[in-house]
Order: sequence, then C-alpha cells, then structure tokens
Amino acid sequence: MTTVAAWAAPAAKAPLERTTVSRRAVGEKDVLIDIAFVGICHSDIHQVREGWGKAIFPMVPGHEIAGVVAETGSGVTKYAIGDRVGVGCMVDSCRVCVNCRAGLQQYCSDGPVWTYNSVGKDGQPTYGGYAQKIVVDEDFVVRIPDALPLDAAAPLLCAGITTYSPLRHWNAGPGRSVAVVGLGGLGHMGVKIAHALGAEVTVLSQSLRKKDDGLRMGADHYHATADPATFTDLAGSLDLILNTVSAPLDFGAYFSLLRTDGAMVNLGMPEEAAEVDMQSLFGLRRSMSSSGIGGIPETQEMLDFCAEHGVVADIETIGADEINEAYERVLASDVRYRFVIDTATV
Amino acid sequence: MTTVAAWAAPAAKAPLERTTVSRRAVGEKDVLIDIAFVGICHSDIHQVREGWGKAIFPMVPGHEIAGVVAETGSGVTKYAIGDRVGVGCMVDSCRVCVNCRAGLQQYCSDGPVWTYNSVGKDGQPTYGGYAQKIVVDEDFVVRIPDALPLDAAAPLLCAGITTYSPLRHWNAGPGRSVAVVGLGGLGHMGVKIAHALGAEVTVLSQSLRKKDDGLRMGADHYHATADPATFTDLAGSLDLILNTVSAPLDFGAYFSLLRTDGAMVNLGMPEEAAEVDMQSLFGLRRSMSSSGIGGIPETQEMLDFCAEHGVVADIETIGADEINEAYERVLASDVRYRFVIDTATV
Repeated sequence: MTTVAAWAAPAAKAPLERTTVSRRAVGEKDVLIDIAFVGICHSDIHQVREGWGKAIFPMVPGHEIAGVVAETGSGVTKYAIGDRVGVGCMVDSCRVCVNCRAGLQQYCSDGPVWTYNSVGKDGQPTYGGYAQKIVVDEDFVVRIPDALPLDAAAPLLCAGITTYSPLRHWNAGPGRSVAVVGLGGLGHMGVKIAHALGAEVTVLSQSLRKKDDGLRMGADHYHATADPATFTDLAGSLDLILNTVSAPLDFGAYFSLLRTDGAMVNLGMPEEAAEVDMQSLFGLRRSMSSSGIGGIPETQEMLDFCAEHGVVADIETIGADEINEAYERVLASDVRYRFVIDTATV
Repeated sequence: MTTVAAWAAPAAKAPLERTTVSRRAVGEKDVLIDIAFVGICHSDIHQVREGWGKAIFPMVPGHEIAGVVAETGSGVTKYAIGDRVGVGCMVDSCRVCVNCRAGLQQYCSDGPVWTYNSVGKDGQPTYGGYAQKIVVDEDFVVRIPDALPLDAAAPLLCAGITTYSPLRHWNAGPGRSVAVVGLGGLGHMGVKIAHALGAEVTVLSQSLRKKDDGLRMGADHYHATADPATFTDLAGSLDLILNTVSAPLDFGAYFSLLRTDGAMVNLGMPEEAAEVDMQSLFGLRRSMSSSGIGGIPETQEMLDFCAEHGVVADIETIGADEINEAYERVLASDVRYRFVIDTATV
C-alpha cells in the first residue's frame, strides 16, 4: 500500500479538494504508474454531481491518464520501468465473457471495473487519475507511442477512443460522409480522427462560433443547427452522424440527414430522458445506435493511429487548484477543447 | 389499352366491389401478365382505409401477384409467353439515382412507382393485382421458379421479400439468434426464411396460441410477450429482432433482449406515433433500424432461395367475393397465415 496525493470530491456535488488515497501494493501483474497528466472529461462532472445516479465518495475522478511506468510486478511482461503508458476508463473486467474475449471489455457482461467510482475485484472502491500515482493490471494499460506528447495524448484515452471506435465500426473513411454533432472535447477528437481516416467531415454545431477551429481540425463543412436551412441543405447526405451532445436532441431531424443505410450513433449519455416519435426513425434502413469508449486492443490501435497521423487533443493545461473552476468552464462550453491537469501540481 | 375485371374500393374505407380497370397497351419493354393469384397484405387494408394518409380512389389493391406471361413487347428480352412470373410492391422507379443503381429501387430518391395507390410515369394512377391482368415493365417483373406453386408463392412477393431482405442484410444464419415479433403474414414468412437460412429462431408472440404452428414452421423457441418472464429469460440473448407488428411496442423492453451489436429492425409501419425514451435504446452498440421490402435483384434472389429450400406461405385461398370478409379477418388476426385470392373469380 502506498499513500499518494490526489484531488477528490468528498461528497456529491461538493468542490474537489486536495487529499490522499491509498494505492494497493504492486501485485504480480500490476504496473505502478507515475501520472504526468490527466484530462478532465465531462463524465467526471456527471459523476461528481451524481447526474448518472448514486456514486461512491470520496471520489477521485480522472480516466484520461498519461504517465510513465515506475515499478512493475514480477509477472509483468508487457511494460518496463520508464515506458510511456496510458490508462483509460477501465482497470479490470471479468475477462471470460463473450465480450471480454472479443476485446470489448467495455461491454463486459458483469460490467467492467471502471477507473473510478467503481468497486474492484478486491472489494475496494477505485480512485482515478487526479492523483500522483496509480496501480493498474498491465492488461488494462496501453502504450503511448513516442510520437505523442503525454499532455495532449491524455484525452485520447477517453475522448479519442470514444470517437475512434464508432468511426471504425461504422466504416468512416474515403468516400464516406461523416458528421460530428457538437464541437467540444469529444467532438473535436471526432473531427480530427474522422479527417485522418479520410472521411468527408461535417461539423453540426449550434452556432458558427467555433467554425475556424473546426475547419483547422480537418472539417470540410461546418453548419449551425440553429439554422433550419442546415436540415434541408444536408437532407439525405450523410453516412454517419456521431452525436457527442448529451442534451436531448430532435432525433428525427438529425435522422433525416442520413442516406440509405446511414447510422446515427450517440456517444453522450444524457441525464434526462428524451422522448422521440419512433415513426421519425423509420425509413431508408437508417439506424440509431450508441457506442461506449472502446476495448483495450482498439485503444492501443487508436493510439498507434493517432501517432501515425499526428492526432492529439487541443488542450489547456491547468494546475490541480484550478479543477473546480475548470468544471464550471466545461459546463459553460468555455474550453478549447480539453483541460488537462499537470499532476505535478496535485 | 385493355379493360380487365378487377375489385376496387371506390372510396376510402368503402368495401371493395367488382369493377373494371384499363391497362395500358403493351409497350416495347412491357409484359402482359395473366394474374393467377394475388395475396392480401395488411398494407392493402392500411391504404384502402387511408391509415397511412390520403390515397387514390378507386383503388385496386394487391402487390403479391403471381401469374403467367400472356404477351411481351417487342423489346422484351427476359421473359417469354408462358413464363411463370411475379410482381411485388413496385412497378417502376427513376432507375438513375444511387439507390436504383444499387438495386435498391424501394429506396428510389424520387420514390418508386408503387404497384397501386401511386402515379406512374405516364401520369396515370396505378392499379394493383386484385384483377385479371396487369401490364408491367419487364425490369419490375421477377421469375417464379417451377418448384414454387403460384398460389403459395404469391405472398413471397411482399411478405417474403420484406423478411428475407433484412434477414440477409443483418446476417441471419448459422450461429445467429433471430427473433420474430408477431406470427402473422409477415412473421410466419420471417420464421420460415430465418430457419432456412440456418439461424436459431425465436417467436415472440402475445400468447402461446399459435405455438404449434410456429414450431412447425421452423421456430426453435416460442415465447409469450404477455409474460414478463420472457423479457428476463431472454435478456441479452438475441442478435436480431424482426418486428412485424405495426402497433406501438415497448421498444426499450425489446431492445434489452439484444446482445452486443444486436439490431432491432422494424418492418411494420405504424399508423400511430409511438413515443420512446431514447435512453432505453442506448448501450452495447445495439441498433434500432427499419427495412422496407427489398430491391428487384434481391426479390429474384429470394424466390430462388425459397424454391431451393421449399419455402412458401401458409395460405387460405378465397374467391374475390370474400375479400371484404377476409379484410375483417386479417384485422382480427384470424388467418393462418395469408389470404390469397384466386383471380379466376375476379
């Protein structure tokens, strides 16, 4: 057991404050990671504020973790001290169900052990990456290629894989027209990765406020959803819509933008119920689906892809004492496009 | 122009009565078909009763047409007098849009010309198969293999292709678990075809009333949806759900029966709006979609498949003067499983 500095919310909706947490002793298959940077994901805020239901406190959020291996267990074969590594949303899973065996640990039948706000196989709550160090089984650690800086790579561990996985699953690539709804933390990664995959990329954002950014990231087109003309101009033109917005949408209106066999894939998990008339979702063999992060093998594939294509997040690096202020700015969409905490300040 | 005997609804919701309609002169690419049998599809009733909106009257329904070629235009290359042929839901389309070029005429950008309750390229209303003869462009005619009797093959032209197409598109086959919701005209074809494709087939019907029939048709399992245990017993076990019921369903409950990457595909087009909480549709990368009939090439493929596997509809053959009574019995789910009109009685 090691005691490490961390930032935690002591109770639901409370501001985060400096504290310490215990990390388990490094087991046979474990890797001790010196965390260098950790991203602030919108889902950190959802969970601290119990927007998705009852949570475990104190809570140390953080599942966009980038760092360096400091110690390895005797049975570790994949990593050595000094390796640059990342940890995303999961730190364990049952490993034997059909989904785990298929490398889709995020859909583990028992539910994976999440990096924080979860209970590990040892019965202890998990604590995330707003901390100096973390101990993780090597099977849930991924390698960060040398071409990627640790700070701007950290958000790839959630925002990157959450967009990469559906883009790959629904065949984004040359000759395919992909729209990303919302240009926030998720959305900006979706635009960059879809562009790197060779797709024709459209941003659908409430206004044209971030248009220059979107085009710089690789978007070919940028439309305001507040403008009704967007929905007539783009009708039936898209193969894939990645919806990164977790607020309720007029799903039928977005559905009408899809071509035959097009798919609308929801990545955000709304806190509120959204009622939709199912009739508006019928026609042209279009589909409505969802996607959650990605499995461990695909997370490594994504990092290698991003290294090859020079894709990283647009980040604003902050000190730990700015976390609470950063949360407010995320909620106000006032970040371009991801806060990353320098954990030297934890 | 030829005048042929037919049965038509003179006005919305009116009973059908004996009448005559004009068929165009046989054009260069046209085939004149002596209709032998025509199926009664639930959508005939929807349209006669204007359940899907304003319709064209008088209306001669019927888009499950089986007959024999009686005359061919000078440019016809695919068919000869005496050939056994079928006509389904479409008799023309734009032929140049991306969907038509892909053989997906049912999704023609201009909308296909439907077999009835539609307007042809000549500006004239189309009249369907409750008639002695019909004239159709050879490109919208399919061949009925000798192994298939014309009467029991007629329903394949709509009910058959409507289930075959999504079963193929969503990869029903060995090792895949497929459920069919509703054991009516569509559903019973879905069960037979899914079984012939090698899938493990489950029927989800309101009660167990038709269980013996379902098992005889090839279902491996049969569950009552009125029993809540069905939804716990089958949770997460299905790869594909074909929903043939056009009444509103608790979509979230059915969605929970799907495995990771499973799809629920809606074949019925409900007259009423169904509100659904989108949150219930999120998770495990499951998808909600729809499918409408199939293209012309796939309709031929389906007929050849059915001939090879001995798949036909379970039919009850009636005379034309029983049509109105048959409609009432369809609405009361009192048909096992498709009425077919012997057009000798028209």
